Amino acid sequence: MDAIRWQGDSLALLDQTRLPTEEVWDDYTDYRKVVDAIRRLVVRGAPAIGIAAAYAVCLAAMEFRDQTLEDFRASMDRAMKDLAASRPTAVNLFWSLDRMKLTLSAAGSGAEAIPVLTREAEAIHREDIAMNRKIGRYGAELVPPGARILTHCNAGAIATGGYGTALGVVRAAHAKGNVEMVYCDETRPLLQGARLTAWELVKDGIPATLITDNMAASLMAQGKIDMVFLGCDRMARNGDFANKIGTYGVAVLAAYHGIPFYTVLPSSTIDMSIPDGKHIVIEQRDPHEVTHFAGVQTAPEGVGVYNPAFDVTPHKLLTGIVTEKGVIHPPFDERLAELFG
Amino acid sequence: MDAIRWQGDSLALLDQTRLPTEEVWDDYTDYRKVVDAIRRLVVRGAPAIGIAAAYAVCLAAMEFRDQTLEDFRASMDRAMKDLAASRPTAVNLFWSLDRMKLTLSAAGSGAEAIPVLTREAEAIHREDIAMNRKIGRYGAELVPPGARILTHCNAGAIATGGYGTALGVVRAAHAKGNVEMVYCDETRPLLQGARLTAWELVKDGIPATLITDNMAASLMAQGKIDMVFLGCDRMARNGDFANKIGTYGVAVLAAYHGIPFYTVLPSSTIDMSIPDGKHIVIEQRDPHEVTHFAGVQTAPEGVGVYNPAFDVTPHKLLTGIVTEKGVIHPPFDERLAELFG
Repeated sequence: MDAIRWQGDSLALLDQTRLPTEEVWDDYTDYRKVVDAIRRLVVRGAPAIGIAAAYAVCLAAMEFRDQTLEDFRASMDRAMKDLAASRPTAVNLFWSLDRMKLTLSAAGSGAEAIPVLTREAEAIHREDIAMNRKIGRYGAELVPPGARILTHCNAGAIATGGYGTALGVVRAAHAKGNVEMVYCDETRPLLQGARLTAWELVKDGIPATLITDNMAASLMAQGKIDMVFLGCDRMARNGDFANKIGTYGVAVLAAYHGIPFYTVLPSSTIDMSIPDGKHIVIEQRDPHEVTHFAGVQTAPEGVGVYNPAFDVTPHKLLTGIVTEKGVIHPPFDERLAELFG
Repeated sequence: MDAIRWQGDSLALLDQTRLPTEEVWDDYTDYRKVVDAIRRLVVRGAPAIGIAAAYAVCLAAMEFRDQTLEDFRASMDRAMKDLAASRPTAVNLFWSLDRMKLTLSAAGSGAEAIPVLTREAEAIHREDIAMNRKIGRYGAELVPPGARILTHCNAGAIATGGYGTALGVVRAAHAKGNVEMVYCDETRPLLQGARLTAWELVKDGIPATLITDNMAASLMAQGKIDMVFLGCDRMARNGDFANKIGTYGVAVLAAYHGIPFYTVLPSSTIDMSIPDGKHIVIEQRDPHEVTHFAGVQTAPEGVGVYNPAFDVTPHKLLTGIVTEKGVIHPPFDERLAELFG
């Protein structure tokens, strides 16, 4: 299962805004359209955004290939700035653009740049899938037989290059026969849990139960959740991390009920340049996402709206961090520095 | 502001399923249609259900007035059983029907019953409004200037005979100039916070900010919530209480952040016959409420769904209970027995 395919001279993206009822792939040849697709959440999920942006850089190089080297570099610089401005929170975007920029700097012309950029983007994509597989294997070791797992938002195959981070763990644990049930928070306002995670799980034949976000606490109180696995959009070097709005609340509830709580991420999601979660920029999105649903108005005119896309969970609420280098336990700052410093 | 009006020979109900975009009142002369209205949440909120059911008993008496006394009593018994079966959790429904049954038992004929039943239903309605006003005054004493209040679901004028329980406190505190902001959990799946609470507050000119349920934790962490007031559908004699799904999660989050957490209720919501929350029946509702919105499918075919209408919050998470007899603090079992035993 995947949502990003490079086709040699165009990028195909599965339109995630139309799931679960329609599976529509669109072709992109203009990097500006990819910027728009990232903004509109056609492609979303921190690793997937990074991969899509890398391929968008290739599209830009194709567009500007015949310019003089100076113009080409200026055009590419602008394109990368546009891509970097698409969404502010997921660090994989900036990490991926940094890799592409470094690759670009060695090229002597537009024509020369295209194959090396393409190889780099494909490497970013391929490495992400490989990391997800490793993450899945490490994470699955944490999952006992009969596990009932809660997840929030979508950290699945379509949020990554393929396979998924949190859902990669679920897939690997399910392959071992250890998953009794995956409870999916629907994840308001954009319902990535209902639309995307439930869709991935049903498609893969993994037992899935959908709940509204406010039902998780009640399930925990009834002893029906054994562990939580969810994704990450940016982690500071002390282990504080930003993820989809609602993650922090799940973390507090899990701690209160003594339920192990793991975030699952490739190292490209770790931002060693910031000391803690206070330094993570949180994207605020359109109030319309909260006041309307599927074109239907659900709130009165004149009401105020608060609509952050993410919240920050302090590392002290984390049981562990599942990465491609293994599961990290506290003290997170020391372990992160050792492995990714 | 109200949602229930007795018109002498018919009952008018504001159709709460059509708020906030349409304000439609419908007339009811058939008690069976009122059963259906309660089931479909045209009228909802524990006190409002009790009042609507009382008036529905009057409609039944009008329908059966010309029957023999024996037939009349049998018909009324069936009607009250139908009404009692409409929804299982709110105890006000059973409390109200018990009052109507007692009133009915003294009547010697259908014709004789109608005026006494009507007077009793009107008394239940009038007393509820009076209790809300008292509740509002007591609760407002808890609210300091500049308070930022979180509420969940709708415990407002339209959930009661008028004025509201939790929103009665908000109204009284706002009249004193002490309310800086009311944050409204939208309250999935049926969005009573977005559709009803935000609508009531905007209509009354009280500052309101709408959030999705999963954003409350983040606001608490930022120090933006000073206190929580919300309603109750049934309270056991130890203070455990059932309220709209998500209430328990809010209670845990409030406790974690040291935020005072109050439930607000008239004494008709207290069920002294049950020792604790384990004895409260929780209504399970149609999975369709979670998998669809406004006719639009938001989840894949084949996913399981868990859709309880309520959860139970243990009394240990309560700071206090606001009632028409004052604010009750722990030990709740002793204080509830003193006041309502």
